Amino acid sequence: MKRAVLLVSCPDRKGIVKEIASFIANNNGNIVHFDQHIDPNKEMFFARVEWDLKGFKLSEESIKEEFSSVAEKFSMNFSIHFTDYLQKVAIFVSKQGHCLYDLLQRFKSGELNGRVELVISNHEDLRSVAEFFGVPYHHIPKHSSNKEFAEKKELELLKEKRIDLIVLARYMQILSKDFVSKYENKIINIHHSFLPAFPGAAPYRRAYERGVKILGATSHYVTETLDEGPIIEQDIIRVSHRDTLEDFIQKGKDIERIVLARAVRWHLEYKVLVCENKTVVFS
Amino acid sequence: MKRAVLLVSCPDRKGIVKEIASFIANNNGNIVHFDQHIDPNKEMFFARVEWDLKGFKLSEESIKEEFSSVAEKFSMNFSIHFTDYLQKVAIFVSKQGHCLYDLLQRFKSGELNGRVELVISNHEDLRSVAEFFGVPYHHIPKHSSNKEFAEKKELELLKEKRIDLIVLARYMQILSKDFVSKYENKIINIHHSFLPAFPGAAPYRRAYERGVKILGATSHYVTETLDEGPIIEQDIIRVSHRDTLEDFIQKGKDIERIVLARAVRWHLEYKVLVCENKTVVFS
Amino acid sequence: MKRAVLLVSCPDRKGIVKEIASFIANNNGNIVHFDQHIDPNKEMFFARVEWDLKGFKLSEESIKEEFSSVAEKFSMNFSIHFTDYLQKVAIFVSKQGHCLYDLLQRFKSGELNGRVELVISNHEDLRSVAEFFGVPYHHIPKHSSNKEFAEKKELELLKEKRIDLIVLARYMQILSKDFVSKYENKIINIHHSFLPAFPGAAPYRRAYERGVKILGATSHYVTETLDEGPIIEQDIIRVSHRDTLEDFIQKGKDIERIVLARAVRWHLEYKVLVCENKTVVFS
Amino acid sequence: MKRAVLLVSCPDRKGIVKEIASFIANNNGNIVHFDQHIDPNKEMFFARVEWDLKGFKLSEESIKEEFSSVAEKFSMNFSIHFTDYLQKVAIFVSKQGHCLYDLLQRFKSGELNGRVELVISNHEDLRSVAEFFGVPYHHIPKHSSNKEFAEKKELELLKEKRIDLIVLARYMQILSKDFVSKYENKIINIHHSFLPAFPGAAPYRRAYERGVKILGATSHYVTETLDEGPIIEQDIIRVSHRDTLEDFIQKGKDIERIVLARAVRWHLEYKVLVCENKTVVFS
Repeated sequence: MKRAVLLVSCPDRKGIVKEIASFIANNNGNIVHFDQHIDPNKEMFFARVEWDLKGFKLSEESIKEEFSSVAEKFSMNFSIHFTDYLQKVAIFVSKQGHCLYDLLQRFKSGELNGRVELVISNHEDLRSVAEFFGVPYHHIPKHSSNKEFAEKKELELLKEKRIDLIVLARYMQILSKDFVSKYENKIINIHHSFLPAFPGAAPYRRAYERGVKILGATSHYVTETLDEGPIIEQDIIRVSHRDTLEDFIQKGKDIERIVLARAVRWHLEYKVLVCENKTVVFS
Repeated sequence: MKRAVLLVSCPDRKGIVKEIASFIANNNGNIVHFDQHIDPNKEMFFARVEWDLKGFKLSEESIKEEFSSVAEKFSMNFSIHFTDYLQKVAIFVSKQGHCLYDLLQRFKSGELNGRVELVISNHEDLRSVAEFFGVPYHHIPKHSSNKEFAEKKELELLKEKRIDLIVLARYMQILSKDFVSKYENKIINIHHSFLPAFPGAAPYRRAYERGVKILGATSHYVTETLDEGPIIEQDIIRVSHRDTLEDFIQKGKDIERIVLARAVRWHLEYKVLVCENKTVVFS
Repeated sequence: MKRAVLLVSCPDRKGIVKEIASFIANNNGNIVHFDQHIDPNKEMFFARVEWDLKGFKLSEESIKEEFSSVAEKFSMNFSIHFTDYLQKVAIFVSKQGHCLYDLLQRFKSGELNGRVELVISNHEDLRSVAEFFGVPYHHIPKHSSNKEFAEKKELELLKEKRIDLIVLARYMQILSKDFVSKYENKIINIHHSFLPAFPGAAPYRRAYERGVKILGATSHYVTETLDEGPIIEQDIIRVSHRDTLEDFIQKGKDIERIVLARAVRWHLEYKVLVCENKTVVFS
Repeated sequence: MKRAVLLVSCPDRKGIVKEIASFIANNNGNIVHFDQHIDPNKEMFFARVEWDLKGFKLSEESIKEEFSSVAEKFSMNFSIHFTDYLQKVAIFVSKQGHCLYDLLQRFKSGELNGRVELVISNHEDLRSVAEFFGVPYHHIPKHSSNKEFAEKKELELLKEKRIDLIVLARYMQILSKDFVSKYENKIINIHHSFLPAFPGAAPYRRAYERGVKILGATSHYVTETLDEGPIIEQDIIRVSHRDTLEDFIQKGKDIERIVLARAVRWHLEYKVLVCENKTVVFS
């Protein structure tokens, strides 16, 4: 059952829903989901519209072109996607494997709508994991002295594989401003704290020292500024005075996995829109 | 800022969103929320549409009539509401006051979109609470022998006050089939368990005896069959082997309050649709 | 069933449990709870021991004296409490009443082991609430110019009533260093964020602007440094892009109430020990 | 850092803590955790005591014997364990691999204190997963006609490998009464519902049909009666009307993994005591 998904953001005005719905109905499409949101402060309109393509009068190729006249009328930012397209994903890791295992297993089982084309790491440690799942593993060491060169190699690989989404699954390196700008809102990171608490290094240790009673994890799009990109999802787990720093790390892993997997899933299902530094996550 | 809310359910067909949106746009309304849901198994369409009435061409009185032609075309069940109408609420209680306090305080602070017209109880105990909040309190004792008579009195009061919603805030009496049928999907109950676990009497005691690690609370519409009506909301709280039965009861109260208040809020905001024995809760 | 509660902290050494347990057994007491915790980094021993006083050989008055020899041997910090003593509580509020209602109702129902002796506020707004529950209400206005004078009056009232615990139930004034030092680990505050995120003013607004997906509340002992005292309890509630700032505030209230009530309850049950800037909360 | 763990249950009496603590102190042990619980209804005493063996005067072999005199005095049920012993674990699976992956990865990373000696399955499907982690995989088909024979083979393997714990990681076969009796409180199952709601077959489908708003998972010891054994852990995840049955299954998997892993972890850390049909889980 092939479907189209339209993501739209534009200044709010009367008649937008009507125009979008008419475009689909007049071309014989059946709307399956129409999720709309108005930000009353910014007076912005956001929508995610999913419709069945069975019997739809327009070809995939022409939908975008035909919709452009509607889009222009309302100064829309929009994108159109098709649910049968398998998005190409790259996963970046360092030494910790819990998120990598989890993601690869979810992709393999069909839970996540995409295909992992490659794993890139600044270490050798996780090669066997990637290879067990049949995914090519590229070891690209990174030091202060070779960072530019390493990123160049990474970008070549990403381009060659036509990567749609980059997932930083506990990748302990900061990407350059230039790198990030090439994949705007297409790089998802997992930070192991409840942002904006404990940004930067060693969040579990700092949480332990502060004596918090709950640990958090945050998945967000990567922007120039470390740990300040638009938040996609957060979740928490309880800790107590009995938990050591090692327990904090162990318990935290359980929510890191889930919070990252949710963000990846929603992104791959075209459910996330970014507006300034916030996300709209259609449910 | 006065708004209209349309709740619709009907068999799914092409063009429904277009027709609804056109009706609103053609009459110069601005859609604030368009939440739609398709049940793929039942092939049913559900929607909640909220629009700004500023500049709307139709009067409140004529909206329903004018919309009827759209409704007929698609065999819709629909209702139209206006956000400036204060719904009239009756709260039924027995001896336990925690939910009553909580609800009255929420109504008073303006959190809940309605006005409590009366409190009915089969006991005298909570009179002072109702009266502190300025709400009339009716003590209508109930025994096996006078149940019919008592319900008659209750129904008269409800009719006289033109009650829109009845909230059973830990009311320990079962309403008759006849009573329930007069307020279909207009009676909300809180059951102090995670339904369908522990329906009926003494759920905390049975949860304690079973050794569960989590307690639940469930708010639902009341139907003929005890504790089997459509579920509106559920939530949970952790317990451990250290908790006594008294602790179970105490901890459970915290989620009873919240789970009941959420259901009442959503109902009063016209966010709940019932289809067969399930709810659609627009967020 | 009268019980004694011993709270102990001291450097960890062999034999501490034996000595405490022997003290109780040798005086014919029956231990009901023996909760012990070692902080492996600080090499500190913490314990909460609760025993039945039925048949106990020592009088209330002499327990402390007799235990002192054990305490000295291990350089213990300790306190002994009796469960039949009703602790005297003062609640400080400003204009928002949701936590006050909630606490007063919990004290009234017997859930919280204490008695509210007075409510102090820098505004008149909540007088009727306190008086409904039969609690004296003291309006002590506070401005930058009269702060010292106002605190003097507050301290006199607290002393006169022999207050054991002060609860800041959304009190929007900062207590002076001098005031705080008089009630060390005896002032509990509720902060409406997930500390250390959003300390200080307007946490809900800042959370809204940051686009978080979860709101938090934190109860903690008040120290000199604003919002940096030892955390007693934290909890969270989900929000989404659909929630306005008003919704954030509304949803937050539900966890403020619960997180504050839990901290007050645990404190009144002598379940909280402070060590440096962290708490041990015996469950 | 080698430690001993004592698990005790017995009728409550004065002096038990003293005797246990004296036994350890008199033999020069340092108590790291002393967790005790009294069930006031059953008048039962439960404790988990963990102490450092550095400098302890008794050998591992003689601890049990020496402690027996204390145990007899109080009619104790007790067991003594050593933290450097790697428990031997067998995992039973059918076709679904998410719990198997998760457990094997946790054992491999050292999170779980044991070693998986074998995986037994009534299907071939998950052989490659087990083998990737270097664990022998035994395919033992099971039909109504060969069940007795199959269990005999399973029991031989378990005996040969001296298995301490059996984990049913979504094993879709019911073990016979005889099998279960051989591993009392040593078989942990994950049931994909919030027991006692939806015991038996197809809990997700039934949850979907009932229209619940929260899904649960329950890990418990296996007893003769299906899904009625002592509950070790439960957790939940939210669902909405938008979730299809497939979404229920997908979301449920995330809590199945965690709820099963927690139970296995606690069991392997000797933190679970069973009394009648309930567990005491020391934290």
